[in-house]
Amino acid sequence: MQLDSFSSLIDKYQVFFFDAFGVLKNYKGLIPGVVDTFAYLRQQQKQLYILTNDASRSPQQLAESYWKLGMSDVTPDMIISSGMLAREYLQLKVNHGTVAYLGTENSAHYIESAGLKTLSISELTLENISEINALVLLDDEGFDWNTDINKAVNLLRRRNIPAIVANTDATYPVSKNRLAIAIGSIADMLESIVGKQFIRFGKPDAQLFMFAYERVQEQTPTISKRDILMVGDTLRSDISGGNKFGLDTVLVLSGNTAPSEAEIRILATGIIPTYICESIVL
Amino acid sequence: MQLDSFSSLIDKYQVFFFDAFGVLKNYKGLIPGVVDTFAYLRQQQKQLYILTNDASRSPQQLAESYWKLGMSDVTPDMIISSGMLAREYLQLKVNHGTVAYLGTENSAHYIESAGLKTLSISELTLENISEINALVLLDDEGFDWNTDINKAVNLLRRRNIPAIVANTDATYPVSKNRLAIAIGSIADMLESIVGKQFIRFGKPDAQLFMFAYERVQEQTPTISKRDILMVGDTLRSDISGGNKFGLDTVLVLSGNTAPSEAEIRILATGIIPTYICESIVL
Amino acid sequence: MQLDSFSSLIDKYQVFFFDAFGVLKNYKGLIPGVVDTFAYLRQQQKQLYILTNDASRSPQQLAESYWKLGMSDVTPDMIISSGMLAREYLQLKVNHGTVAYLGTENSAHYIESAGLKTLSISELTLENISEINALVLLDDEGFDWNTDINKAVNLLRRRNIPAIVANTDATYPVSKNRLAIAIGSIADMLESIVGKQFIRFGKPDAQLFMFAYERVQEQTPTISKRDILMVGDTLRSDISGGNKFGLDTVLVLSGNTAPSEAEIRILATGIIPTYICESIVL
Amino acid sequence: MQLDSFSSLIDKYQVFFFDAFGVLKNYKGLIPGVVDTFAYLRQQQKQLYILTNDASRSPQQLAESYWKLGMSDVTPDMIISSGMLAREYLQLKVNHGTVAYLGTENSAHYIESAGLKTLSISELTLENISEINALVLLDDEGFDWNTDINKAVNLLRRRNIPAIVANTDATYPVSKNRLAIAIGSIADMLESIVGKQFIRFGKPDAQLFMFAYERVQEQTPTISKRDILMVGDTLRSDISGGNKFGLDTVLVLSGNTAPSEAEIRILATGIIPTYICESIVL
Repeated sequence: MQLDSFSSLIDKYQVFFFDAFGVLKNYKGLIPGVVDTFAYLRQQQKQLYILTNDASRSPQQLAESYWKLGMSDVTPDMIISSGMLAREYLQLKVNHGTVAYLGTENSAHYIESAGLKTLSISELTLENISEINALVLLDDEGFDWNTDINKAVNLLRRRNIPAIVANTDATYPVSKNRLAIAIGSIADMLESIVGKQFIRFGKPDAQLFMFAYERVQEQTPTISKRDILMVGDTLRSDISGGNKFGLDTVLVLSGNTAPSEAEIRILATGIIPTYICESIVL
Repeated sequence: MQLDSFSSLIDKYQVFFFDAFGVLKNYKGLIPGVVDTFAYLRQQQKQLYILTNDASRSPQQLAESYWKLGMSDVTPDMIISSGMLAREYLQLKVNHGTVAYLGTENSAHYIESAGLKTLSISELTLENISEINALVLLDDEGFDWNTDINKAVNLLRRRNIPAIVANTDATYPVSKNRLAIAIGSIADMLESIVGKQFIRFGKPDAQLFMFAYERVQEQTPTISKRDILMVGDTLRSDISGGNKFGLDTVLVLSGNTAPSEAEIRILATGIIPTYICESIVL
Repeated sequence: MQLDSFSSLIDKYQVFFFDAFGVLKNYKGLIPGVVDTFAYLRQQQKQLYILTNDASRSPQQLAESYWKLGMSDVTPDMIISSGMLAREYLQLKVNHGTVAYLGTENSAHYIESAGLKTLSISELTLENISEINALVLLDDEGFDWNTDINKAVNLLRRRNIPAIVANTDATYPVSKNRLAIAIGSIADMLESIVGKQFIRFGKPDAQLFMFAYERVQEQTPTISKRDILMVGDTLRSDISGGNKFGLDTVLVLSGNTAPSEAEIRILATGIIPTYICESIVL
Repeated sequence: MQLDSFSSLIDKYQVFFFDAFGVLKNYKGLIPGVVDTFAYLRQQQKQLYILTNDASRSPQQLAESYWKLGMSDVTPDMIISSGMLAREYLQLKVNHGTVAYLGTENSAHYIESAGLKTLSISELTLENISEINALVLLDDEGFDWNTDINKAVNLLRRRNIPAIVANTDATYPVSKNRLAIAIGSIADMLESIVGKQFIRFGKPDAQLFMFAYERVQEQTPTISKRDILMVGDTLRSDISGGNKFGLDTVLVLSGNTAPSEAEIRILATGIIPTYICESIVL
């Protein structure tokens, strides 16, 4: 397994797509050195984007969360979240009525900014069930799992409405040794129970990459896929999705994929990054 | 689709295996007429067994639940539950230490009667995690879904121990139009998250049928599989399992499979019952 | 189930995306009336595209196949095939060496036009296996199933190279009552055997829609997703993919989905078309 | 990872269940030393059985194949094959008409000995299709893959009959570095295409173990599951199935599971053998 230094890759690309968790930050905060890397990349006139399967907060709130950690140069327009794709879907396809959601009030922002009324699934009743035109799964917090996941099953049995998953991750780390179940796993369970096909947004699906790529081309129409490097810590979302979209990819070993298991996982999954780096620290 | 009357089948078989929910009872109580059918079958010297994917209570408690409903002739030894298979597994394969469980205290009976110490997953701590030698999924009640399902994920990541599923059903009905998620669905989600193979007991798996068949043969060694009729309301558990075990099967339309959809589901799944009856009412 | 006439939808959209099989043609040839519909749409200044999971022939050859059937106004640039996505992937990600393929010599066109050397899997030997940098699954014909599918298994076990599926369909109709297995099913079997993640192109995946949408926007930058109607006969590819991409969709009943089963399938899958039409015939 | 010597385990058990491929023999012939182990076990009055997912030949023919290799003490009644379970199913559930099969003429033995007429799928025509009452998948040889697997798809679409899989293995080794696709993989592909539930016999399913256990108890009724050791080289069939049936299990490293990967695979799958031995050689 050949390790490259991240600095040796910088000159080859104009645009960098970063995954957030495991690349820029982890459960303890920012990964040390990341602020310097971002400063250097900007100095080199590179364009930077953060592609994240996070629908718990708006791009504005996500940007603010970086400011608090000490990355003051992250702006909302650098952030491409799976929640934005869910919002676009709702705007185009569910243009009236009420959307029920599993998630926090913060996460419901994506629905409200699509101009739709929202209803936490906890407030779903026999009276208002007929007004619901979609169910959106946004976040694993903000509801009672037992009561409200059961309510979601019965909502989808009674009403033939689209179910949209705005974060396809199965788990997320909460400490060095502990994972928490993400809304993506709850979505998988619900889909299997009701037998209907859910609509999923988030890496590795091409639409998140496409959304970012369109934004790049609006800014600089001459940039092609060859000029973009996708940086991620997870083979099955970041690298798989980047590869399929036609981008060069770098697997960093500062998150989900430990240095000791990188080689065996690449071999086992057949998901082959263009490069492997320890981290993005220069 | 040809419908047979249940009474026309009685003479052909010596032993009857009944599924419980949807055949003998439903969310409202006993299915009317079932008491008379049982009385008639006993009068005809037939052997009766109840095969159930229910690990929430002991056979004694399950029998008592029929007494309360008015079926006083159901004895504990007529009941073959998936919890009994889980208990046999624990006795044979996990013969010391503590077994953690997801379920009610009542359901933990199956573990305790295997001579093992039990620990509700809610009481799992960093101190006692090293004593746990197995995790058993028994019932969807008796724990906090969010906290304790997450605890189960992290238990299975830290300790390479068997995970046993004592009820493989995905859902169960709680009223005419409402389902509740059963522990089988939670097991599927957990298995997918941790990537390990769980050990499942319950229909359609052959072991529940084998357990009942052994009890039949202890009583009457001359009885063969040809003399047994499996009666169930669900194609994917009762009928599929009975067929594969080599039994004749009857699908009754008093539970999960509505009369209007029986034919289309048989065609779609390729699970073909020997007979179809409206119910077991004579 | 409300049926709309296709003519009543025409004024609402500027661009029409058509699936090919079951919409424009079937195993007998062109669907009668389709030539007139295309003529009328052109007269109304509509833009027409054909989105097809067909990698067996080049767009030029596919266009010629319509000419032979009597649709002389189908031009190669109207055709967006999954083979074109596979070619783009190969150009961007596999830029040297030889690509092995399962398919006909005709289908290998997509690889050759990416500037790569090709090798039918039937010619794979111990000598040339080290030169192979990708495997592409193009078509179910052109090779010996037993010998060459087994060769593909062993190629993917020896060399950690990407496997690209250029047609994700599971089957295709060859007569009124007969299906044939498509390369998509063979891909699923291979992927399950070797345990590696294949890269799939074709509906319902967003990339085929994106490719067509980019071509639309090159022609007419003002057109948005709201101006496009996706027309297809299959819920799981055409309608599911169109919906997720944010397009309005119409299910036509002239192909895979029979009029008698449309309603039940929509309910069972939860894939909800915007409209349902008998066919595209005016 | 603690390695035990096989000889240290012998005194603890009365009965030994052996997997065939990877334990007793491999693609080159008998594993050296196996003849001596069998001789020693017999001298110690142990009961020996061979549990194999092989439906290509009858127990008599399988025994003869061991004689040719130099193990003259293997008798047909020591062999428990998945083909025997398929035969029992056919006898009990398909008691008239013709059974179509995918496999060699040799493998059709199991159907004929159930008293049923057989028809190779290659001879299936529009005339005789209505006489077919079951399809049995026996072996990956004896038919044209392209023509006859397609015929099987259309048979199962036209006739709602049970499909029985008599060998659930996905692949088998044909040389040190080469695998061949087994009928189990073809069965998975067919099942996915037609959407119907197939009936599978073979490890890890409990029925093969039950069949062997019944034979043990006929001979020596006092033997319990605690007295039996299952010996296998494959976690997902031998060890998983043995564990679930309640037997102690030993993983040998002379076949599918290489010494270098045993520990990581046990951790990854959660399938935990009671012991690990290099081989059964003393």
